[in-house]
This record gives sequence, structure tokens and C-alpha cells, in this order.
Amino acid sequence: MRRSQSVQSTGMVAAEIPGYDYGSSNIGKSPVTLGEFEQLMLDANFTDDDVHWLRQAGKVLADQAPALAGKWRDIIASLPHLAIYWQRPDGKRDAHYAETSGLRLQQWILDTCQRPYDQAWLNYQQEIALRHSSVKKNETDHAQIATPTIHLRHIIAFCAVITDPAIMKPFLAAKGHDAIDVDKMHQAWTKSIWLQIVLWTEPYTNTRLAPNEW
Amino acid sequence: MRRSQSVQSTGMVAAEIPGYDYGSSNIGKSPVTLGEFEQLMLDANFTDDDVHWLRQAGKVLADQAPALAGKWRDIIASLPHLAIYWQRPDGKRDAHYAETSGLRLQQWILDTCQRPYDQAWLNYQQEIALRHSSVKKNETDHAQIATPTIHLRHIIAFCAVITDPAIMKPFLAAKGHDAIDVDKMHQAWTKSIWLQIVLWTEPYTNTRLAPNEW
Repeated sequence: MRRSQSVQSTGMVAAEIPGYDYGSSNIGKSPVTLGEFEQLMLDANFTDDDVHWLRQAGKVLADQAPALAGKWRDIIASLPHLAIYWQRPDGKRDAHYAETSGLRLQQWILDTCQRPYDQAWLNYQQEIALRHSSVKKNETDHAQIATPTIHLRHIIAFCAVITDPAIMKPFLAAKGHDAIDVDKMHQAWTKSIWLQIVLWTEPYTNTRLAPNEW
Repeated sequence: MRRSQSVQSTGMVAAEIPGYDYGSSNIGKSPVTLGEFEQLMLDANFTDDDVHWLRQAGKVLADQAPALAGKWRDIIASLPHLAIYWQRPDGKRDAHYAETSGLRLQQWILDTCQRPYDQAWLNYQQEIALRHSSVKKNETDHAQIATPTIHLRHIIAFCAVITDPAIMKPFLAAKGHDAIDVDKMHQAWTKSIWLQIVLWTEPYTNTRLAPNEW
């Protein structure tokens, strides 16, 4: 995979990202409506200000997505109960899956910062959620992973790392912004992760049994 | 309800808290084992350092729990789609439910900071989760609330407010700690909320259908 020459201008971490179906007709519609998402943004006090600071974060992180994703993956690799999610039945890491899902993880960092949170974004959040779950995990990459699902409990708990200021703020400060601006970028990021976890929870819940329960 | 004279010494926000069954034989066992919770703490990078800073936060927040809980409730009251969770079928707030659940919310703030995260704590997290869900909501207080469940999506999204540094840090700074210590208290608090959301998600998920899915 050739890395894009100009991630700042394209907003893409690579010229091609296998399985990155953002906006594609391959993916379905989110079960969460835009009206429902408006309510969730109110719950989280996610405002236009946060959108502004996410855009700034997107510029700051554009060339750092590989390093940030790598940092998280080093932590995953150090925890055997998380590392299983990219291991084949023989216990070895599936290299193709690791590469393609890694590129998509990097692109997700930038999408979190730069995409409008519209219908296409909602739809892709649902696709990401399905790819964590047994509904679609491993399918996209035809991967031979021993574990058919990423357990929701570990996805949520790991968000403490994804939002950890000790990890995130050095990246957000790397282009010379002052501490107040870094705080604002970090807080907008954290709110977005809470909102995305709401959306990623959907396939694991009893929605089909009792639509009002989750 | 008489307010305790010495919340600092008892760790309790009131001499009596109706329905507060922490450690009681009235409540069941958590479906999450201590071993599983150990893994979740690793996921979240929740360490002994965080326990230390939560204890400090507990001392700082001891006499501020009513004010902090009140701040969150003002936000809930301002959002009609959240305010329904304490409204009776006639649209009026159920005063008894508001008072008793409010005291339990205050106590939860202190428990988050001062309780050991042991089996009793895990069990009570499950009880809190059940009381959000249709399994037990309103039962504890015999409340006549129109809505039989607090929808998981709103619980998770509101955690962006529960962890919002703009709200939380002024409370954590109120006893004169410097900014670095306030940061550490806030970060420990945030990690704990991520972990508790994992636990609170359980009743909403397909665990009984497919135990490995969440």
C-alpha cells in the first residue's frame, strides 16, 4: 500500500485503504437516526465548539495517525487477552488483517476529527460496530482470526486508553498549540469517543428483541 | 432525611439512604468476576496510582457531593428527553424518587472514590445497572415513572458530562490542590467511569442469549 503523499490535502492516511467503505453503498443504514443523534450530542454537551476543536486536532494529527495508532496497538499487544483479537488459531498475528485494520484505525482517527457527523458518518459507525461484532468481524479482510468477536466490555474499557490525556495530549501538543488549546482538542476528542461508544454498542444490545431497551 | 454530621468520618452523605443496599444480601452477584474485572482494569490502564488519586478526590468531594450531583441534575432537567426518566405519567417529577435516587447518586460519587473495587462493589455496580434497566428501574422506590428503563444510549452519552473537566475540575480544585493533582484526580475519575460503564452495560446486552458476545 502506497502512503498518500499529502494526507493534509486529501484527509486520507493512504491512497488506498482496503475495506474502507466510508460512504459506499456496500454498507447499510445506521439504526440510529440523525434526530436521535442530535439528542445524544445534547446529552454529551457536544457543541459547535467541539467540532471546531476536532478540526484543529485533525490538522495536528494528520501526519501522526500512524504513530498514535501504533501507541495504542503496542498496549494491545502487551495484553494477551486483547492481542487474541488479531491472532489466528495458531496464535500468530494475522499480518494482512493487522495491516488493513491498522490503516483503517489510522483513518478513523482522522475521520473522528474531520468528518461531518452526518448520515454517512452514522452509517459508517454502525459498520465499524458490526466489524467489531460477530456479525462482520474478520469478514472484510477474509481474516482467519480465532476469535469471532471483539467483546464489548474490552472495547469500552480500552476507551480509557483512547482518551487518556497522558497518551493523547503529547500528540495534540506536537504542533506548538498552548495547553488551553490542547485541553480543548482533547475534550472534544473525548466527547466524540463517548458518542461513538454509544453507536458501537448497538449490535451487542437487545435492540432486535426490545427496540426501546438500549 | 437527616444529613450526616460527619460525611468525612462516615463516608456517607446521609445517616440513612433509602434503597442504598451496598453490601446487602438483598442484591445479587455480579455476572462479571473479579478476574474479568482485573482484565478490564488492565485495558483501561487503571492502576494503584489511580486508586490513590480517587481517595484524594473522595476527601475533596466529601462535602461537595450534593452540589456536584445537583449540577448534573440541572443539566438533565434542562433536556426534556432526559427529564422523562424521573417523570410520572402526568409529566410531573416524582418527588420521592427524585430525593431518594438523588441521595444514592451523591453516595455513588463518594463510593466511586473511596470504595475498594472488590466483589461487593462489583455486585452493587450490577444492582445500579439493573436499576437503570427495565429489570429493576422504579422498583426500589415504588416510583410511578412513565418510562420503564433508562435507555443505555443516554446513560453512555451523559458520561461525557459526568467526566467533563469543565464541570468536574472546579470541584476537584476546591480544596486548594494544584493543577497537576487535579488532573490526576480527574483522570482517575474518568477511568473509573469508563470501567463502570462496562459494568452498567451488562443488563442491556445479549449475555443471556450468547454469553461471549458482550
